[in-house]
Amino acid sequence: MRILDTKSFSVPGFKAWGIHCGIKKTDKKDLALIYSDREAAVAGVFTKNRVKAACVLLDAAKAKSGKGQVMVANSGCANACTGKRGLADARATADIAARELGVPPASVYVASTGVIGEFLPLQKLESGIVTAAGLLSPAGWEQAAEAIMTTDLYPKLSIVQEEIGGKTVTVAGIAKGSGMIHPDMATMLCFIMTDAAIAAPLLKKCLLSSVETSFNSITVDGDTSTNDMILCMANGAAGNKRIAAGTKEQKKFQACLDAVTRSLARQVVRDGEGATKFVEIVVRGAKNPAEAKRAAVTVAKSSLVKTALFGEDANWGRIMAALGYSGVDMDESRTDISIGKAKLVEKGLGQGKAADREASLALKQREVQITIDLHKGKAEATIWTCDLSNEYIKINAAYRS
Amino acid sequence: MRILDTKSFSVPGFKAWGIHCGIKKTDKKDLALIYSDREAAVAGVFTKNRVKAACVLLDAAKAKSGKGQVMVANSGCANACTGKRGLADARATADIAARELGVPPASVYVASTGVIGEFLPLQKLESGIVTAAGLLSPAGWEQAAEAIMTTDLYPKLSIVQEEIGGKTVTVAGIAKGSGMIHPDMATMLCFIMTDAAIAAPLLKKCLLSSVETSFNSITVDGDTSTNDMILCMANGAAGNKRIAAGTKEQKKFQACLDAVTRSLARQVVRDGEGATKFVEIVVRGAKNPAEAKRAAVTVAKSSLVKTALFGEDANWGRIMAALGYSGVDMDESRTDISIGKAKLVEKGLGQGKAADREASLALKQREVQITIDLHKGKAEATIWTCDLSNEYIKINAAYRS
Repeated sequence: MRILDTKSFSVPGFKAWGIHCGIKKTDKKDLALIYSDREAAVAGVFTKNRVKAACVLLDAAKAKSGKGQVMVANSGCANACTGKRGLADARATADIAARELGVPPASVYVASTGVIGEFLPLQKLESGIVTAAGLLSPAGWEQAAEAIMTTDLYPKLSIVQEEIGGKTVTVAGIAKGSGMIHPDMATMLCFIMTDAAIAAPLLKKCLLSSVETSFNSITVDGDTSTNDMILCMANGAAGNKRIAAGTKEQKKFQACLDAVTRSLARQVVRDGEGATKFVEIVVRGAKNPAEAKRAAVTVAKSSLVKTALFGEDANWGRIMAALGYSGVDMDESRTDISIGKAKLVEKGLGQGKAADREASLALKQREVQITIDLHKGKAEATIWTCDLSNEYIKINAAYRS
Repeated sequence: MRILDTKSFSVPGFKAWGIHCGIKKTDKKDLALIYSDREAAVAGVFTKNRVKAACVLLDAAKAKSGKGQVMVANSGCANACTGKRGLADARATADIAARELGVPPASVYVASTGVIGEFLPLQKLESGIVTAAGLLSPAGWEQAAEAIMTTDLYPKLSIVQEEIGGKTVTVAGIAKGSGMIHPDMATMLCFIMTDAAIAAPLLKKCLLSSVETSFNSITVDGDTSTNDMILCMANGAAGNKRIAAGTKEQKKFQACLDAVTRSLARQVVRDGEGATKFVEIVVRGAKNPAEAKRAAVTVAKSSLVKTALFGEDANWGRIMAALGYSGVDMDESRTDISIGKAKLVEKGLGQGKAADREASLALKQREVQITIDLHKGKAEATIWTCDLSNEYIKINAAYRS
């Protein structure tokens, strides 16, 4: 597998663009269009929040067909909690794009992110879609990635290539974060494009597996959004023999997909609202994988742990306390905790000032690893998170104004 | 029931005092002593965190006897994650107090709050206990309440009186917060003293009921501590006929206990780390009481809701999103949300700018009420919480330094 420079991001058979159409009050881009020159196999993963935005309701129904060709995504307005009018607006958005691009409305997916409870400005969207359709380009991905940003500081792209079935297959994706980020899932939009030939059911299976160790393994603030979605389009332009289940081709494709989703998930955390640190939390020795993940997520979500990370304070007691209330099987007197290479805690006991000092140095880095061994079994999980800073408060206390 | 001024806090048969013995680096008080002049019935509620401080392990075992006479509490060092030495230190603390006050060690309970993973300075504690024992006073409660503070800004006391069984019975308590505050339970110490005559098993029953709607209905940051405890001593000095189960005397006593625990719980939230607002979240129309509470707690814990409250932004979409991921049975199109008297959302839809403006005014107050009606059933729950401010980050990023 080759990891490509995102500057040369391009996927055979796909075009994209992003513009400012007037949803955001600033002049920042707020409308992205992604287009496949032929019908593609489609697989989607949608938020598990019971309150689902109109676009989520619409796309989840469309994705059952396993087919699609176009994605229209806007930022600045979530079109969530907007009732029947919201659903009609989402349908109208798809209809406009279908008309402009000459595809059936059933082939057009829509995605929104932004403030909840406000209606889409349909007229602005319409003229925006007309403009963007005229500008669609095989090299328009940075523009598209920018146009789905909300409080994100930079666009998120990832692209890899691999020989699959004798052909060069490209797997690529763009994503946005960056608050309301939590497993199952995030205020997170992610669009993955590949020219691989693969049937929709197998694509869905690969996507679900990939999401588990990427987007469902990150947390910024523990809030699960109404609008999260990951949509993957595979248009077969690579001309490979269709990937079959259980083959080494599937394995290779899965590896590519995993590389893209994990890269994007890490970028989302790195750009978490107010984040000053990227934190990897590894829990080992749990009784089973579910408990490993639960323990890691509980530590990652603790406001006290996150503020200690921001303060570069090796306050391991807060980690131990979080493990204690995580509900997983653990025993303080067996638990080890390391920050970076510093073993701070062995069998439940602090290892003194030298270990503390070493951990403090590790905490001064931009990337921090916390390793916990529960010594209760063999299961392991990794969660990525960030610290909780003044800046998070500042961003979220003033988000709508 | 009469609610008394805490300035005249006094409970027949009890004495207390608080001093600085040198655990804290500043000159703030860090050791409290509470003494009953006769053996009292004792009931306790302890943290459900699997990682329990030494004092919690010790007291939970002692409380099974239903008897006790003395409480020694220190702040500045949690004596948690300290293994066998920690347990020996907790025992030694009780032994010192027992010797000084001439009671059996089994009658002495200990409590600690502060940094996890550090050992108690036993020599300082010993001389502190000797000094405090000499200063014990029927009017020493403000000193004791101050001595259990950590990041608390002010001491928390509550006292009520009621005629029970022909006698005036006093129920009073002191408590400390103020980070790691979350149902089941809080970094929270609470000591309740009453001169009522009541047997330990009934006292325990009353205490458990009272805790459910007070300390288990508050959340500051969602972190459950290793050291939480509520200990209630009833010494019978009022001379009332022993309160029997199922009588109107029990009801009266329960009402007194509820008044004290609810007052202290509200004080803990009001003094939450960095709190600028006291927020009451009422969920109505839930399918059952457990779902009502879960919905309210989820909203109360959401970092996005809490930062919006800090920013005085009527961003109800975040409330709806939190309800959506709370896991309770809800339907966006039935849900109503009010802030203060402003009905912001009816049947899932925003009610426009006038409602927004009214809610914004309500959010400028120091006390805010959010009312949610799920229209799914008849159950109701109330949770008290505070906002999430820059100050919380500042306090917790630098707590140990």
